[in-house]
Amino acid sequence: MSLPFQISVATLEREVLVDITGQVQEALKHFAPGLSGLVHVYVPHTTAAVTINEGADPAVKRDLVEGLARLAPRNAAYRHTEGNADAHIKASLLGNSVTIPVVDGILHLGTWQSLYLAEFDGPRTRKVWLTPIPRLRA
Amino acid sequence: MSLPFQISVATLEREVLVDITGQVQEALKHFAPGLSGLVHVYVPHTTAAVTINEGADPAVKRDLVEGLARLAPRNAAYRHTEGNADAHIKASLLGNSVTIPVVDGILHLGTWQSLYLAEFDGPRTRKVWLTPIPRLRA
Amino acid sequence: MSLPFQISVATLEREVLVDITGQVQEALKHFAPGLSGLVHVYVPHTTAAVTINEGADPAVKRDLVEGLARLAPRNAAYRHTEGNADAHIKASLLGNSVTIPVVDGILHLGTWQSLYLAEFDGPRTRKVWLTPIPRLRA
Repeated sequence: MSLPFQISVATLEREVLVDITGQVQEALKHFAPGLSGLVHVYVPHTTAAVTINEGADPAVKRDLVEGLARLAPRNAAYRHTEGNADAHIKASLLGNSVTIPVVDGILHLGTWQSLYLAEFDGPRTRKVWLTPIPRLRA
Repeated sequence: MSLPFQISVATLEREVLVDITGQVQEALKHFAPGLSGLVHVYVPHTTAAVTINEGADPAVKRDLVEGLARLAPRNAAYRHTEGNADAHIKASLLGNSVTIPVVDGILHLGTWQSLYLAEFDGPRTRKVWLTPIPRLRA
Repeated sequence: MSLPFQISVATLEREVLVDITGQVQEALKHFAPGLSGLVHVYVPHTTAAVTINEGADPAVKRDLVEGLARLAPRNAAYRHTEGNADAHIKASLLGNSVTIPVVDGILHLGTWQSLYLAEFDGPRTRKVWLTPIPRLRA
């Protein structure tokens, strides 16, 4: 089957980072067991994003949400009138996909790294699409 | 042939988002018909970028241009003296490449997503390089 | 061997962009000679990033460091108390990976592009992980 593998993530606040490292790792076991290469993680939305940052101290993800809110305030003057123009800007600042090394089926992240879905217009149920990429054989 | 497939995009303003979804889709038909995997979309410039965001309401792309102009004002104090230091900063904030799922030769975007070339120092003719990536066979 | 190829980069200031284009090109010769496709460049840290921008005028990388410092000031009010919350925000704004076309073993960058490691909490020795991606054969 050639579609990306899809997982769902429920977000519980308007603006929040949700750690999806474990969920993506679990999915990898099913659709790409033993993969060595990369996994492409793609959010098919325009008011959410995906980013990699520290997973140890929950303060970091709150600083990131608040730091982005200072860069694109919710109540600034925007042309888009759905009340979520700030969310569109934040989504492009972080980007809607990341690509992560995978070794023998395991996400090969740095020591302090976690993978986050960044929600900027929740609460909603978001989709995340995963595509396995084989690396060049050495 | 091992070079990326190149398309050209004319931008008509100094700062503008140009929807290149259709042009990239058309190119895919020629250089990677039937591809299932991903396409890497790369801007070989340093004052332009590529981003995915809402395509339905044109206000969104103007909010994005104006929102970035607030983050890196054109007339702030910069060291680079070519008058486009703001454009370099915006280019790094959005990033110069995106990778998008492709299924049976068709860009597999989310419902509201369009692919944009983001021009920050136009008008110019910009190049976009496309590289097809096969996915791991299931 | 299925691990990414690792290089090390010493950063000499708290906030600085280090041009790693030559070092990545040299590494490519060893671990993926003759590659045509893409190379994935990944920083396994949460207070550093990787970005592509102009390499000709050193003023550009200083503008970028200073421009980001205006967006996430070091001494703003943050929840994370290690004194580097600004660095975490900057890391997510630029992103921790880029993917670059490679033709016959050579990085296929635009005329003015260089590849930078962006340090936001140095000086430190940083790791960069490289993964070769084959392109689809035409």
